Amino acid sequence: MKTLQVHLGERSYPIYIGRDLLSKAGTYCEERGITRKSRHLIVTDESVAPHYLERVQSSLAEAGYDAAVHIVPAGEGSKSLKVYEEVMTTAISSRLDRSSAVFALGGGVVGDLAGFVAASYMRGITFVQIPTTILAHDSSVGGKVAVNHPLAKNMIGAFHQPVMVLYDVDTLTTLPPREVSAGLAEMVKHGLILDRDFAYWCLEHADDLLALDADTLTYGLERGCAIKAEVVSSDERESGWRAVLNLGHTIGHAVEAVGGYGRFLHGEAIAIGMAGSAMLAEELGRSGLYDETVKMLQAIQLPVTLPGDVSVDEVMEAMQHDKKFSEGQMVFIVPEEIGRVSIVKDVPVTVVRSVVERLQKEGIKG
Amino acid sequence: MKTLQVHLGERSYPIYIGRDLLSKAGTYCEERGITRKSRHLIVTDESVAPHYLERVQSSLAEAGYDAAVHIVPAGEGSKSLKVYEEVMTTAISSRLDRSSAVFALGGGVVGDLAGFVAASYMRGITFVQIPTTILAHDSSVGGKVAVNHPLAKNMIGAFHQPVMVLYDVDTLTTLPPREVSAGLAEMVKHGLILDRDFAYWCLEHADDLLALDADTLTYGLERGCAIKAEVVSSDERESGWRAVLNLGHTIGHAVEAVGGYGRFLHGEAIAIGMAGSAMLAEELGRSGLYDETVKMLQAIQLPVTLPGDVSVDEVMEAMQHDKKFSEGQMVFIVPEEIGRVSIVKDVPVTVVRSVVERLQKEGIKG
Ligand SMILES: NC(=O)c1ccc[n+]([C@@H]2O[C@H](COP(=O)([O-])OP(=O)(O)OC[C@H]3O[C@@H](n4cnc5c(N)ncnc54)[C@H](O)[C@@H]3O)[C@@H](O)[C@H]2O)c1
Ligand SMILES: NC(=O)c1ccc[n+]([C@@H]2O[C@H](COP(=O)([O-])OP(=O)(O)OC[C@H]3O[C@@H](n4cnc5c(N)ncnc54)[C@H](O)[C@@H]3O)[C@@H](O)[C@H]2O)c1
Ligand SMILES: [Zn+2]
Ligand SMILES: [Zn+2]
Repeated sequence: MKTLQVHLGERSYPIYIGRDLLSKAGTYCEERGITRKSRHLIVTDESVAPHYLERVQSSLAEAGYDAAVHIVPAGEGSKSLKVYEEVMTTAISSRLDRSSAVFALGGGVVGDLAGFVAASYMRGITFVQIPTTILAHDSSVGGKVAVNHPLAKNMIGAFHQPVMVLYDVDTLTTLPPREVSAGLAEMVKHGLILDRDFAYWCLEHADDLLALDADTLTYGLERGCAIKAEVVSSDERESGWRAVLNLGHTIGHAVEAVGGYGRFLHGEAIAIGMAGSAMLAEELGRSGLYDETVKMLQAIQLPVTLPGDVSVDEVMEAMQHDKKFSEGQMVFIVPEEIGRVSIVKDVPVTVVRSVVERLQKEGIKG
Repeated sequence: MKTLQVHLGERSYPIYIGRDLLSKAGTYCEERGITRKSRHLIVTDESVAPHYLERVQSSLAEAGYDAAVHIVPAGEGSKSLKVYEEVMTTAISSRLDRSSAVFALGGGVVGDLAGFVAASYMRGITFVQIPTTILAHDSSVGGKVAVNHPLAKNMIGAFHQPVMVLYDVDTLTTLPPREVSAGLAEMVKHGLILDRDFAYWCLEHADDLLALDADTLTYGLERGCAIKAEVVSSDERESGWRAVLNLGHTIGHAVEAVGGYGRFLHGEAIAIGMAGSAMLAEELGRSGLYDETVKMLQAIQLPVTLPGDVSVDEVMEAMQHDKKFSEGQMVFIVPEEIGRVSIVKDVPVTVVRSVVERLQKEGIKG
């Protein structure tokens, strides 16, 4: 078992990564000072619950914790205000109080949803992340929580740090292959942003990662979490530098939205977006990045082009609603080289459009 | 014009209190560094808009600010997730971005609702309070924002400080008399909690306050805001001392809920609650408080008893959902003398029930 630390003053917290951690959930709760006097709430989804809920429940019960459960439908659709209200209803009926904790047992969807419940229930209660997807090595660290608005993704949310992240890599064995690739997209992203060696390590170990080899995967997740934790520690509320974590997300979020949040997985959409960012870098004069980026993404079986039937106009329109569209200008994270990016604040919309068009042409071509 | 300051480190902000301030809204925005590059959003209600919206709009426009408007129905019903989502839709369609501000023009309902929108839109944007009720001298200061859940009041919310409070006392002249009394309830509360002299000043000047005499009212609001600001500055997130501001609110919130948020105004409900707290103090051995408290509340024409048709069982049940019900115990703010209170953490439920019953008997008796 490995422990990483997110350094945020009095909001600092550990990330525990290792095997068979679910069955020790109760012990970790005790360690983190979670009270036994109040009731707690486990939020999970219909695909995760049959595999892992009981293990968490019995570990908590054995340690003397009383936790209600709310199970949401699997998938991005649960990151809605409607489901949020339903979880709130359970929280209130279960008599959660100010000392209660909300546990997110699942992927990024459950984490983001349950996290926003924890952030806003009685103006904020304790939050625990128990991620069960590869993608969630990213989403469970850093305190960004949110639900979607029909008009745009992650529009409604908060910054609310968990008190711990309990990452049991044994849960990843039941992930569907498409989710494995999508999750690895964020791992590669962490390399592309800040760590050239790690990016190439991901490329070299792509097959082992896809095969969920325990040691390889654990190292990749540790390194991914460590990079994320480092960035978040230096800029918790994204007043500047933290924005680098959005590499590929401006185009990616727009692609997700246009696909109705069902067609593309988040990781797939941002893979397309990262290919787009590399193109954009070349348009802005930094050459040789596109081929390398695409090679890395394809090695983990991710899409890197926009299907021909997706409307470029709709992608451009969706991008205008993005949070990274600020004071009338488009902010883009642009690679400088593999392992280094910069924040470019006024990318002309025409250049972005030509990138999106090329993302589509490459797909038709190749 | 008087300026008070809420001291909260980098989240500090001024409260401007005075006459004819609405028409200077644009100037104050400039002073507080609000950008002209982004669009903003004014949230107000159907009763306030006809009187004051245009004045704010034209002041902002003159100063070069572009602001969309969302008008909600008047009344507590607008503090719902449904209306919250509607305001979010307007915010997104109006292309508010991370540098935008949300302006709350209205009473505590608009302030709490618009404040929670500002707290959670894109995980938090700038917030400006422009209170137009007497009650809002309390609600606009301190950063507590929330909407209600059908099961309990203020259950969903955040701490989100405004960047300024622009309090134009001229707006108070159009308040219906019942709202005047209800608003003065929080003013008296501030005296009862922390300032004996101010509590008796309110009693002496009750008639001038009810008649909205400009100078008397302005002094009362200044003193009320100052007490609120002082408490908030010392304990922003209610980890301890700030809870004293909840005097009368445990019973009060329950009474509001049982009345369906329509029968009793917030100020009326907490007046009944403050009478209850004084009774509770006597039950706990501090005598002579009840008669004084009731005299002060009645002087400003507030109810101090529970109508005979309100179910005591329902009031007790609603209280269990309250945020002040923590780890299985009831927390009560109990007066020690006029102008001084203490936080009592484990009031037996049986004692609370006998107080609620007596609140009803006093009404039937008297
Ligand atoms: N908060 C952040 O910082 C952040 C960062 C990145 C992504 N995100 C968000 O995360 C979400 C995507 O996360 P995700 O990819 O984990 O999605 P997800 O939570 O929907 O999980 C993917 C699918 O796998 C299933 N699943 C999860 N764990 C499983 C397991 N162990 N075995 C079998 N099936 C399992 C889920 O039921 C779901 O159907 C998006 O909404 C994205 O916006 C947030
Ligand atoms: N956030 C806090 O710290 C805090 C503190 C106390 C109360 N509150 C909340 O505040 C709310 C009550 O606030 P309120 O009493 O201001 O209610 P309100 O906002 O509903 O206003 C009362 C009524 O007066 C009308 N009105 C407002 N200004 C007017 C004006 N100038 N002229 C004519 N009519 C006017 C409104 O349309 C409404 O019908 C409750 O929801 C309560 O929970 C919050
Ligand atoms: Zn992502
Ligand atoms: Zn109040």
